[in-house]
Amino acid sequence: MFQYVGPVANLIAALSKLPGVGPKTAQRLAFYLLHASEAEAKALTDAILEAKAKVHQCSVCCNLTDIDPCQVCSDPLRDKSIICVVEEPKDVLALEKTREYKGQYHVLHGAISPMEGIGPDDLKVKELLKRLSGQEIREVVIATNPNVEGEATALYLARLLKPMGIKVTRIAHGLPVGGELEYADEMTLARAFEGRRELE
Amino acid sequence: MFQYVGPVANLIAALSKLPGVGPKTAQRLAFYLLHASEAEAKALTDAILEAKAKVHQCSVCCNLTDIDPCQVCSDPLRDKSIICVVEEPKDVLALEKTREYKGQYHVLHGAISPMEGIGPDDLKVKELLKRLSGQEIREVVIATNPNVEGEATALYLARLLKPMGIKVTRIAHGLPVGGELEYADEMTLARAFEGRRELE
Repeated sequence: MFQYVGPVANLIAALSKLPGVGPKTAQRLAFYLLHASEAEAKALTDAILEAKAKVHQCSVCCNLTDIDPCQVCSDPLRDKSIICVVEEPKDVLALEKTREYKGQYHVLHGAISPMEGIGPDDLKVKELLKRLSGQEIREVVIATNPNVEGEATALYLARLLKPMGIKVTRIAHGLPVGGELEYADEMTLARAFEGRRELE
Repeated sequence: MFQYVGPVANLIAALSKLPGVGPKTAQRLAFYLLHASEAEAKALTDAILEAKAKVHQCSVCCNLTDIDPCQVCSDPLRDKSIICVVEEPKDVLALEKTREYKGQYHVLHGAISPMEGIGPDDLKVKELLKRLSGQEIREVVIATNPNVEGEATALYLARLLKPMGIKVTRIAHGLPVGGELEYADEMTLARAFEGRRELE
């Protein structure tokens, strides 16, 4: 039976490692790339390599950026006194699409998950505490995902920040419980933001 | 509203061009690659560039290969007197999985589609005729997709080859009509191969 070995097999294997890409999709992407022009394939590899080389975490909010501080942190028009805490960079994009929020962000790069051995020290919590001690912050909005890990993270942060006299709020469960922030529609996300309540 | 510009936006745009990858999937793949190790990202870009540099069409059967003639064409154990004509390289892989067929292949790189302006001259038909004139071929099995374009291509080839005294067969419609060869299960494909009939 004929099977690809060498460059085609390597390409399919490399593509299979991408999230949500199974063997069939990897094969289809591989043949697409082999049929594509040299220029298009090079545009893709250049984009990957350039992003890997230039993109890093913002020294303030830990979001991914190619400038430092990032676009949001260095924008003088945004409210410096409110920080919205999210799990991942994609959550910042999701919230920005609602056009409801004009404050700062803080990206944790994950959520507390004892099952996966992820504790607060694996998240950008120290960086958040540093921001809170250095600046006058009137509110921290916790916008972690409305699932087990996100709720655990929200509770942890609330217990950590409340004794510091900081107002800590949680976005409302307008989101379907058990879901992920990334997939909520913009109206639901906007309503969730509006209906945020102080953590007791 | 904050949106990525620069390297992250470029990466998302480049990934969006892949087939079946919408803006949301492109964003997820981009953040995955940004979080991945340098080594993993480089493995992917190297695999793409190496495949683009080394993989070309076999001078005999037009399948994609990094050696010439390809693995199938240069295999002395395979029957040289039967050629199975398919639309795309992925169809060769699908047929090989049935383990029923031990002959040669010919990859057309498409199908006749007046709607898309693709005629016989855009396919590897000349290359097929050259093979048929140079070699003793007892049968040509046409395994183009069982949809409009594939059937049109099969009919065209049958009318072209029959006057040359070559036995031309078509794989049976064990496949769901209107579907695509790539997604058929292996048993159905094997039955379709067995039940092939001569084109009248």
